[in-house]
Amino acid sequence: MTDTGTKKIQEKRKYNVKRKYSDERKHSKKQMKEIYLDQGATSYPKAPGVGMAMANYIDNIGASMNRGSYGKAMEVGNLAIRLRERACKLFAFQDPGHVIITPGASIGLNMLIMPLFQEGGHVIISPLEHNAVRRPLEMLLQRKKHPISLSIFPYDLGLDGDFSPLENLIRPDTKAVIMLHASNVSGEVFPVEAIGKICKETGIDFILDASQSGGHIPIDFEKMNLSALVLPGHKGLLGPQGIGLTLLREDFAKKLPPYLFGGTGSVSESLTMPGFMPDKFEPGTPNIPGIYGLEKALQFIEETGVEVMEAYTKQLHQRFLEGLYEIKGKNLIQIPGKEGRENSGVVSIDFCTMDNALVCNRLASRYGIMTRQGLHCAPIAHQCFGTEKSGTVRFSFGFFNRIEEIDRTLLAIQKILS
Amino acid sequence: MTDTGTKKIQEKRKYNVKRKYSDERKHSKKQMKEIYLDQGATSYPKAPGVGMAMANYIDNIGASMNRGSYGKAMEVGNLAIRLRERACKLFAFQDPGHVIITPGASIGLNMLIMPLFQEGGHVIISPLEHNAVRRPLEMLLQRKKHPISLSIFPYDLGLDGDFSPLENLIRPDTKAVIMLHASNVSGEVFPVEAIGKICKETGIDFILDASQSGGHIPIDFEKMNLSALVLPGHKGLLGPQGIGLTLLREDFAKKLPPYLFGGTGSVSESLTMPGFMPDKFEPGTPNIPGIYGLEKALQFIEETGVEVMEAYTKQLHQRFLEGLYEIKGKNLIQIPGKEGRENSGVVSIDFCTMDNALVCNRLASRYGIMTRQGLHCAPIAHQCFGTEKSGTVRFSFGFFNRIEEIDRTLLAIQKILS
Repeated sequence: MTDTGTKKIQEKRKYNVKRKYSDERKHSKKQMKEIYLDQGATSYPKAPGVGMAMANYIDNIGASMNRGSYGKAMEVGNLAIRLRERACKLFAFQDPGHVIITPGASIGLNMLIMPLFQEGGHVIISPLEHNAVRRPLEMLLQRKKHPISLSIFPYDLGLDGDFSPLENLIRPDTKAVIMLHASNVSGEVFPVEAIGKICKETGIDFILDASQSGGHIPIDFEKMNLSALVLPGHKGLLGPQGIGLTLLREDFAKKLPPYLFGGTGSVSESLTMPGFMPDKFEPGTPNIPGIYGLEKALQFIEETGVEVMEAYTKQLHQRFLEGLYEIKGKNLIQIPGKEGRENSGVVSIDFCTMDNALVCNRLASRYGIMTRQGLHCAPIAHQCFGTEKSGTVRFSFGFFNRIEEIDRTLLAIQKILS
Repeated sequence: MTDTGTKKIQEKRKYNVKRKYSDERKHSKKQMKEIYLDQGATSYPKAPGVGMAMANYIDNIGASMNRGSYGKAMEVGNLAIRLRERACKLFAFQDPGHVIITPGASIGLNMLIMPLFQEGGHVIISPLEHNAVRRPLEMLLQRKKHPISLSIFPYDLGLDGDFSPLENLIRPDTKAVIMLHASNVSGEVFPVEAIGKICKETGIDFILDASQSGGHIPIDFEKMNLSALVLPGHKGLLGPQGIGLTLLREDFAKKLPPYLFGGTGSVSESLTMPGFMPDKFEPGTPNIPGIYGLEKALQFIEETGVEVMEAYTKQLHQRFLEGLYEIKGKNLIQIPGKEGRENSGVVSIDFCTMDNALVCNRLASRYGIMTRQGLHCAPIAHQCFGTEKSGTVRFSFGFFNRIEEIDRTLLAIQKILS
């Protein structure tokens, strides 16, 4: 990026943060000193106004949605529509009615995976899957009736422009490729557009878990040829926990039976789930304060621009990597991940000469730097990296981290290693 | 109740509300004039401090739980434990580890019903079930493989002290009684202690949907011989939407396989869900702001006392019924529900001479009174009452409704009818 480009982003960021943020939130001195680099677990701080929007709903609105015809109930319903519309805008998606409000990405994935493989079939995944995909599939692999079969595409897929290893895995009974967009361990971003093209050409479904990419990297539902896009609200989208979004292509939504059943406030006389969208996949009262919070967060992302957020996070990532260069040269650390791939703002480090848990604890206790150590709910990714025994210390960055925090973290790592 | 008793309750209520409430929340003039009688859909206002606790988490804490070892992550984890402990206290339950945090009662019920009847079996329900129970069971009835069979116990069960009609329904393949504690249409409370006793004696499981009773009526897990107690956080418990609690008896939790799969932040190396509690049933990041809000709400209920809340809501209910007496005498309205049963604070009215939807709309538009008209996601209850065509207008009361609101509502009904 050019210097001018960088400056522009920094100014935009400063402007946004200053204008919208400092008014609405105050950090205590203690928190200013702490450095939160666990954005891969959940983003913090959230987008400005998220907490306030939620509290305002709880305190001053309070009504349910789709379950009453008085003004306040309509107001809540309209806000939910606005959230769906914002999701459409953000992910180049056409139909707000096919944006499902879920309790989060994990349940969102269950709702797709379980019914799709009801009668068995073959699935292809990436070698870096999170347990949110891997554990539901493991249940389907182990069950006695209609067990599925599973293939993992090669780790270096597409790095040399060759996608035939994926094509070769596709069988007549292959139902879908289900994979993460970016790894929550290494941050590397898979070439999903090319993978989506293959899925389209071969007529199989493509389910993308964007838990580590939504809000970090631009996502285009159409261009990526997705059947379904699954997102948590509380990571890159800068919203609260307890809410997520699942975007479904129309034909995919039609063929998919529901996995969760209950009242919808619609066609109450029917003992089966409504066939229409989004009610078909939204039983029970949704997380309404979450809807208010996430709508506010998407508004912020829309106004800021994912491209701007991506470019800024890349700066942080780049600076961190450069700072680690010397230590890496001395073989004191290993950094999993394929070079040549984009990164969503996550760096995992395996400290060769020290216990990773010890490093993680020292970072927190001595320097106030919050990271996450271990296997990050992604054991197969760590197997892929050869770190399944040691785990790694994960440093994950977000739009509200500052350059200065990266520098302080680098300094802390150097001190711990020396 | 004696006059002294009533006075005590009113004082306690005033004290609590005044002390804790007016400080923390402000109602606009407009809202003071509105009368919210849709507590059966979701309670409003919430317990004092709920919105603030959620916003404070979002703004000043922000970390995830079970996914990091730094101080803030521990703090969040401890708060979740406190929520589970409060639930134990409230429902006379022994083990906080068997209190599952769910996204709500509907998903909570799916998590029990679906795995329990994996291989089919027979289930007994009440004649007033909500679609949260009825729709999952309908799917199991209609499926080709291992369809279940279903019996409905007689509406007047136990009114004369005779529970043999229920006993007679129990077959060798009966797995459970699944039923609501109180009807969301008529408010009537079923004699669950006697039903639980029969379940225990015949060795079948007893799953109670306390969506309309938790926080309204005292619930004793042990005394009621429950296998599972399912609660939403946002109704009588006065917490936010998007969170619920499911309490599981140890042996029931052991035999029940998980229905939802994903990362738990524990035993990450394992591709199957952890066998231990509560992780076995808690995949994915939970609704953490919801945990903060609900914990605050349960604290309020604990300090106020469910008995106090119950007695006050009964007063409202009684006053409303008495006010309707004259209109009822003229055969202008029908009120579904069996006399002789306790009521959780819900009155449904079928207006014989007017369209129910029209009455509901007039109440809202002319008098600012928010009610809910239709079938209330409980078609079989309306069939039982003979109101499946007309529906009813539902008036549902809560601890924060005032006597004066009941009187104004009665006046509005009289005006609409004249």
